[in-house]
Amino acid sequence: MFKDATSQEIDQVLNTSWQAFHQYRKYSLKDRAQFMRSIAAELENAGDELIQTAMRESNLPEARLRGERARTMFQLTSYADACERGEWLEARIDTANSTKTPPKPDIRKMLIPLGPVVVFGASNFPFAYSTAGGDTACALAAGCPVIVKAHPAHAQTSEMVAQAILKAAAKCNMPNGVFAHVHGASQEVGKALVTHPHTKAVGFTGSYLGGKALFDWANQRKEPIPVFSEMGSVNPVFLFPEKLKQSAVEVAKQYAGSITLGVGQFCTNPGLIFGIDGDDLQQFIDTLGSEIKAVNPGTMLHPGIAKNYLENKNKALAQAQVQTIAESNTQPAANQGVPTIASATGEAFLNNPVLHQEVFGPYSLVIRCKDLNELLEVVRHLEGQLTATLMATDNDIINNDDLVEAVKNICGRFIVNGVPTGVEVCLSMHHGGPFPATTDSRFTSVGADGIKRFARPMAYQNWSDSLLPDELKNGNPLGIWRTVNDVLTKDKI
Amino acid sequence: MFKDATSQEIDQVLNTSWQAFHQYRKYSLKDRAQFMRSIAAELENAGDELIQTAMRESNLPEARLRGERARTMFQLTSYADACERGEWLEARIDTANSTKTPPKPDIRKMLIPLGPVVVFGASNFPFAYSTAGGDTACALAAGCPVIVKAHPAHAQTSEMVAQAILKAAAKCNMPNGVFAHVHGASQEVGKALVTHPHTKAVGFTGSYLGGKALFDWANQRKEPIPVFSEMGSVNPVFLFPEKLKQSAVEVAKQYAGSITLGVGQFCTNPGLIFGIDGDDLQQFIDTLGSEIKAVNPGTMLHPGIAKNYLENKNKALAQAQVQTIAESNTQPAANQGVPTIASATGEAFLNNPVLHQEVFGPYSLVIRCKDLNELLEVVRHLEGQLTATLMATDNDIINNDDLVEAVKNICGRFIVNGVPTGVEVCLSMHHGGPFPATTDSRFTSVGADGIKRFARPMAYQNWSDSLLPDELKNGNPLGIWRTVNDVLTKDKI
Repeated sequence: MFKDATSQEIDQVLNTSWQAFHQYRKYSLKDRAQFMRSIAAELENAGDELIQTAMRESNLPEARLRGERARTMFQLTSYADACERGEWLEARIDTANSTKTPPKPDIRKMLIPLGPVVVFGASNFPFAYSTAGGDTACALAAGCPVIVKAHPAHAQTSEMVAQAILKAAAKCNMPNGVFAHVHGASQEVGKALVTHPHTKAVGFTGSYLGGKALFDWANQRKEPIPVFSEMGSVNPVFLFPEKLKQSAVEVAKQYAGSITLGVGQFCTNPGLIFGIDGDDLQQFIDTLGSEIKAVNPGTMLHPGIAKNYLENKNKALAQAQVQTIAESNTQPAANQGVPTIASATGEAFLNNPVLHQEVFGPYSLVIRCKDLNELLEVVRHLEGQLTATLMATDNDIINNDDLVEAVKNICGRFIVNGVPTGVEVCLSMHHGGPFPATTDSRFTSVGADGIKRFARPMAYQNWSDSLLPDELKNGNPLGIWRTVNDVLTKDKI
Repeated sequence: MFKDATSQEIDQVLNTSWQAFHQYRKYSLKDRAQFMRSIAAELENAGDELIQTAMRESNLPEARLRGERARTMFQLTSYADACERGEWLEARIDTANSTKTPPKPDIRKMLIPLGPVVVFGASNFPFAYSTAGGDTACALAAGCPVIVKAHPAHAQTSEMVAQAILKAAAKCNMPNGVFAHVHGASQEVGKALVTHPHTKAVGFTGSYLGGKALFDWANQRKEPIPVFSEMGSVNPVFLFPEKLKQSAVEVAKQYAGSITLGVGQFCTNPGLIFGIDGDDLQQFIDTLGSEIKAVNPGTMLHPGIAKNYLENKNKALAQAQVQTIAESNTQPAANQGVPTIASATGEAFLNNPVLHQEVFGPYSLVIRCKDLNELLEVVRHLEGQLTATLMATDNDIINNDDLVEAVKNICGRFIVNGVPTGVEVCLSMHHGGPFPATTDSRFTSVGADGIKRFARPMAYQNWSDSLLPDELKNGNPLGIWRTVNDVLTKDKI
């Protein structure tokens, strides 16, 4: 329906973004925040038509999409608040000291924008992780123009959101080119965007293959640029002995819900569950199995995802020593994903890398370990994860320090007695993690700290107060937090 | 004198570092800080013998080396203070809110260490950017064990510093393997260190070729890891019209000093000076030339650097339209670098990439631009730089906003009416910059913010207060700054 952008068109877009960068970077924090709030308002103004378009393209239910739009608006407005509050700027001031040898000059530092940012949205979140999603909000807050590559699975939704952003840009007198929208179903479009010399950073949410390709292209450039790819994970869950003895049935019911939520189409879906073999674990598996049988298959985001789910699940189930525990009792319609639970031993898991791989959909594999030592061995062989969860009593945690430390070492968010699905939008959220969960464990794509992906420090040495940006002036006209001579303060100098 | 480490030895070292990581990461901020302060004390205890060894290996004068050791000790102790102050942890707490739909869980985030860090020291700073230098100090503060690859040009100095660190480690009851020292003159040793699966980050200071090779190896790993390579730059200086009219002679004298300081062997050496052709610029060039003639050649760090200086300088001087302005009047002895000034037009500079390249040593090229438009064009073609300097009146800056913004866009530290040499150790310092000055413009290698290169956020969701690390407990027992429900505070919860 939409034609792929040509390389000439992409060049044109990036040239305009580059011009816009030199204007937009000078806009105040307040102006950037106002623009972001205006985008939120325009998303609301896009009304039911936007929801219906997204329903048609994504197969997601109306309530979910209304909730996701509200979440997207909350991201925009809460990151706008953070943008204005200015803590993300990491303003530091060291005043001059002429009595030192050699004399110490006046030095002041703050974060400034990197330049045009290319954003690749996710198939599973047409609003919150797409065109006006977290990456776009973070880049705009940082002072970077944004170029969004529409996800082909919801290109019309993306187009409508892009129009809403452009409306907000016009209302807020933003420079031409502060936001651009590019279509492209082919890999060439993505590659042309990432390798264009005016592109200065990339945000991506999606598959390992997609995210890693962008990362490699970016690093092979003459001038490498930072890429934050969030590439999903299997989000291991660890069932500890005392906890399981107390509440195997409750935990199984809770997890049946988390595994099948949204037809399992979340990057925080719990795909691996580890426990110590025995009666308690058996009770957990039995309960989880009977719960899963009662969950109806759901229509997946698009036929390609449904096909991949079936193929990847069948591949996992066909591995030696993997046993299918339960499948939904209901026959699936076309493009529906069937909730499925399987099981294998710790030994099988250690010997077979296929069992470590994410199966995107309502599937989870329960690993029965011989003992805590084998479980520790398993953890030490796990790849980087967005989340890890302990179902554990305080005693379980205190008595298994090595295991808990080993889990900490592989995850970005560490949950106790909860489920990994559900990513709260707040400053303390970390949605990231060691490779291959992301391409840089030092950054997050959820929460206002995500702004820092798209900004870099710059130090001003020996500048006149009147020529410094407001953020660093003696009088602190913006009233922001700054570290002055090693002390955090809002005071004037 | 020292044998290259074998791949078996390197594997052994990294296995020990990996074990040490699981211990050292649990050490409190206070314990880490104490270790760092103890290293500073042991550097002092190494006494005159350390200084004499460094003099013999580096050809650097005694006063410089005593000053550099003091700087290194200050880095260790001031980063230790910052480590304990804990602002670098970016502690964030969002408390639970059960009235929200869905209920908001308690989430708390802080930075945790990445794992073993490999450090490659610089030839030109045997103390401050080497074995116990800024990268080592930052990694230890972050909670990471360090493996230093000794610079072959000062391997004996490095060995002595390593012994001082190991003494401090023993005194402070640090785990075996918290610090390791590896020799190697061959590229293979560096590659084996960077590509070892237990290596989780790399710090490097040196040449573009060296730093870029490490970056590429790290990104080609199965699990890519962050590399911060500081690769030097040409540190452009811009002479603005009003300033030059007022003080061409004073500026020329100041720069003759900066260009030849330490035989020009600083990554912040001003290698390119831009001005608008005319009488004032000619006066600047004439004065700079006569000053340079009076500066004696100095012995360079080692014969390889002296040879490279001569070759690179001769290559630059042999380019079409490049004119030698002045050389030191004094004949050089073996391995001495001859202070040299050359000049070319803006047009020649725009057309010849060779003129953009760093010539490491006491050399600077003055570019005569036709007018401010050509100067702007030149700036837009400059590569990323550690520093850029404006010699300018306030009027010059106000009247040339486009030019000033274009310069800002390419540098990490932006100086007005000063010289780029001299990198103050303080929190507001940014020693970094867009590629190719470094491999990641978002990080610094000087100042306590450099700790963040070696740490990543991790979020704790729904943990019992008693099981949280002290940094995140309700009572704030460490008394650190934390952002609680979006408000920066030291208060308890």
